[in-house]
Amino acid sequence: MRIGELSGRTGVPVPTIKYYVREGLLAPGELTSPNQASYGDAHERRLRLIRALLEVGGLSVANIGEVLVAVDDKQRSTHKLLGAAADLLVPGYTGDGCATLADGDADGAPDAELDADPDVVVARKKVADLIAARDWHVSPDSPQAQALTTALAALSRIGHGGFAEVLDAYATAAEGVARADLAHVGRGPAREDLIEEVVVGIVMGDAMFAALRRMAQVDGSSRAFGTGGAAGPDGLPG
Amino acid sequence: MRIGELSGRTGVPVPTIKYYVREGLLAPGELTSPNQASYGDAHERRLRLIRALLEVGGLSVANIGEVLVAVDDKQRSTHKLLGAAADLLVPGYTGDGCATLADGDADGAPDAELDADPDVVVARKKVADLIAARDWHVSPDSPQAQALTTALAALSRIGHGGFAEVLDAYATAAEGVARADLAHVGRGPAREDLIEEVVVGIVMGDAMFAALRRMAQVDGSSRAFGTGGAAGPDGLPG
Repeated sequence: MRIGELSGRTGVPVPTIKYYVREGLLAPGELTSPNQASYGDAHERRLRLIRALLEVGGLSVANIGEVLVAVDDKQRSTHKLLGAAADLLVPGYTGDGCATLADGDADGAPDAELDADPDVVVARKKVADLIAARDWHVSPDSPQAQALTTALAALSRIGHGGFAEVLDAYATAAEGVARADLAHVGRGPAREDLIEEVVVGIVMGDAMFAALRRMAQVDGSSRAFGTGGAAGPDGLPG
Repeated sequence: MRIGELSGRTGVPVPTIKYYVREGLLAPGELTSPNQASYGDAHERRLRLIRALLEVGGLSVANIGEVLVAVDDKQRSTHKLLGAAADLLVPGYTGDGCATLADGDADGAPDAELDADPDVVVARKKVADLIAARDWHVSPDSPQAQALTTALAALSRIGHGGFAEVLDAYATAAEGVARADLAHVGRGPAREDLIEEVVVGIVMGDAMFAALRRMAQVDGSSRAFGTGGAAGPDGLPG
């Protein structure tokens, strides 16, 4: 198909497609004449992936390049491929050069001074204990576990360390959610589809769960503190 | 106590405290001499709340003002008080004048044109069905339910509507998380403490759960697609 049809099918404007090609994210089409290139299904798949990574995943162009390198590396196991995409989507580790709560110098790694911070030391132990108790095959040094450590340390720092008591109930719920996520993954025939499923699932899944959690809180709060009757349009009982 | 001690106890710089007083977020201290004001425990509590709303909740000064009005309104039920704080923390409805996926004209309400969008219509029905099936006391028109509608419609729009199959498992997990959240709420003696618990819990809870979900995904993925052995430092099996 020509670039116009590729644009129509994917919703990506023609100049944007040309930009992706210039940046090396998308392979150029096959030249059928000096001024015309022909694109195929592989281009369409790759373009949908790029769009999901950008618009849904919020990844930078550079990060997307990294994910695509992993996708094109036929040697990598499916697990490592999923890991490459997932690691780039851990909150606080976007690698986009922005400072975060745990990465004040914005170099993409937690600040070294934090290692001695007592809140961090305590948080790290909580996380290690949780991993051991649930026999989770994930390292305490992984980006995912470090994200939890960061959140727990921040909680302590503002005097709300007690909230960490929800950790066990949260971990059980997380297992249920992850089971559903993994059951959904892996139906697409191409590796790009797998990565796209993962990215979309991770990002949209966060948003979906956050909304569901709030809905369940409104329900629970209404029963515990409200009239317990049917909810009005503002979401609260009359 | 004098403003210096209030600053030391809360970690909020003196000029910032003065700014909050000017903005009406914090009551002025009692003047003990023309140049000195005296602050009490109520000021300290209010200041911790403001800090949590700003730094953890990411609320704007105007939004914080709204929450504080609710806190000071003795007539409001606990449920409505929690609702006021929670509504301001629904993703996409920060009321900060920023355009979001569902609110392109940034007026704080979903765009009217979306009402006819087929993806939105289908999403709204899914949400209404879920609420009915679980007998949740929350309105489909509440900000919380609308956030879910927005996420589901966006999923469809990018061709990943199939991911919505996880909704049931997610809802079960959300009930578990909300139960833990509500069990934790309400131990502080003052209403400010309750709001602070809610804000911190909602925001940090999102971050904690997102991290736990990812950890559980690494564990599940390792068992399904990897070697299934112990994780190395990159979080993946060797």
